[in-house]
Amino acid sequence: MTDPLFGRIAFIGIGLIGSSLARAVAEQKLAAEIVIFDASADARAAAAELKLGHVVDSAAAAVAGSDLVILATPIGAYADLGPVIAPHLKKGAILTDVGSVKQAVIRDLGPHVPEGVHFIPGHPIAGTEHSGPRAGFAELFKGRWAIITPVTGTDPAATAKLQQLWSAVGSMVEVMEPGHHDQVLAITSHLPHLIAYTIVDTATQLETSTQSEVIKFSASGFRDFTRIAASDPTMWRDIFLNNREAVLEILGRFTEDLTALQRAIRWGEGDKLFDTFTRTRAVRRGIIDAKQA
Amino acid sequence: MTDPLFGRIAFIGIGLIGSSLARAVAEQKLAAEIVIFDASADARAAAAELKLGHVVDSAAAAVAGSDLVILATPIGAYADLGPVIAPHLKKGAILTDVGSVKQAVIRDLGPHVPEGVHFIPGHPIAGTEHSGPRAGFAELFKGRWAIITPVTGTDPAATAKLQQLWSAVGSMVEVMEPGHHDQVLAITSHLPHLIAYTIVDTATQLETSTQSEVIKFSASGFRDFTRIAASDPTMWRDIFLNNREAVLEILGRFTEDLTALQRAIRWGEGDKLFDTFTRTRAVRRGIIDAKQA
Repeated sequence: MTDPLFGRIAFIGIGLIGSSLARAVAEQKLAAEIVIFDASADARAAAAELKLGHVVDSAAAAVAGSDLVILATPIGAYADLGPVIAPHLKKGAILTDVGSVKQAVIRDLGPHVPEGVHFIPGHPIAGTEHSGPRAGFAELFKGRWAIITPVTGTDPAATAKLQQLWSAVGSMVEVMEPGHHDQVLAITSHLPHLIAYTIVDTATQLETSTQSEVIKFSASGFRDFTRIAASDPTMWRDIFLNNREAVLEILGRFTEDLTALQRAIRWGEGDKLFDTFTRTRAVRRGIIDAKQA
Repeated sequence: MTDPLFGRIAFIGIGLIGSSLARAVAEQKLAAEIVIFDASADARAAAAELKLGHVVDSAAAAVAGSDLVILATPIGAYADLGPVIAPHLKKGAILTDVGSVKQAVIRDLGPHVPEGVHFIPGHPIAGTEHSGPRAGFAELFKGRWAIITPVTGTDPAATAKLQQLWSAVGSMVEVMEPGHHDQVLAITSHLPHLIAYTIVDTATQLETSTQSEVIKFSASGFRDFTRIAASDPTMWRDIFLNNREAVLEILGRFTEDLTALQRAIRWGEGDKLFDTFTRTRAVRRGIIDAKQA
């Protein structure tokens, strides 16, 4: 029997992503020991009940002696976590995370990381609209991308080890520059979520009788948006606050494009609508070809 | 063996919806004979090959002698179809359609309908992003709503017969005032499609290298929009041109709400974002409870 990839892995935050990764790590025997901390007592109790790992009562206790520390809380919590965990990080350990924004994470955590600890931010492109430790499952990362965004000067051996972890749980790994990550995710993830939240919220503000009909006839398109708009509110608040520039930039482009279509509808410019609706089909084709459909 | 619900049923247009309904009608033995016309020779050939019914070479030939005529073309074709089919409609026949807008259909077709023909517009809330006769399947309407929008003075017996047809193919039937239908669909279907088309189009206008990454990492939210934005361009052009007022009205509300969230992001108003994202979860709950998820 070969040694596991890591001795001790600490999870700080055991929601959908953390608990899914803990399950996958256990299933693939990638750690000799899994230690878990979550700020929520309910989440800690659930993690213990689900036997996801050894649940401890503080982030410091989870981090101490761990060879890999995975932050899987909403990213707004990182700034406070940094100084709390920093003194307990083991020399030679890897510190990573799973947050959907990378520049802000480097800004908030970077200054706290002690010499000799490998800080390598990461982001698995996987998830569901459900939240919490009970929503997790080991297969979540299979066939999905995991992006890791090492900062300049990162030890290539540590980066390779983190890549191995993600490969072992079934992901394809991409190394990317943090700022570029934030731009790509602004269009592929952050803007779609913002729009989905908006349209569902627009519907909640209709008169009550219409609202019940919106639910009744949701299968005509609206339903897909409600699934996205059921995602965790804290996590998404933090994403928008921490990827502000990239989100506002792409939102500006989107609004221009929407205004152009609005004008085409108002003035009956059918050709313009038809051309746009034809162009967009090719993107779907690309996604199907890339086996991400 | 009991008689089928209708003697002869004519389908004008044999795309996703028409061909699905033809399949369901055959499966449930709701017609003694199915006659099909489509303006596209390819679609006619496919319908013949799929043995969906007796394929004829003109709308007039399909309509002649039919007890139920179902228009299932893009709604932009109705204005031209009206005068073509009107002289051939059988006395006592029911004329219906499956279009996503109802007031414009009544405006375009109503004046052509001869005395003694029951004109009852309809709209099944069902579909996929695929198009054409080969994309259809008999189960498409099962567990989904079919809305019918009879105009004032419609014979209740004819309405009941059309309701029976939709029930027999597995749908739940709702009778609705045409203008109200158009408002409800503007929010549940037309606006979501317009937004999905827009965001996918915004992505197509990014630089080429980013575009390939958008496809690669589409699983983070964008993918759901591309599915919607792969729907038939002609059909959707016609919907927006024919439900202009209701779409522009709801689009105005959406834009206001989006601008408010944009401002909250710019000014770091986390509470406002959190409150909105929390409110929207309840709508998803409603859809799950209504078994439309």
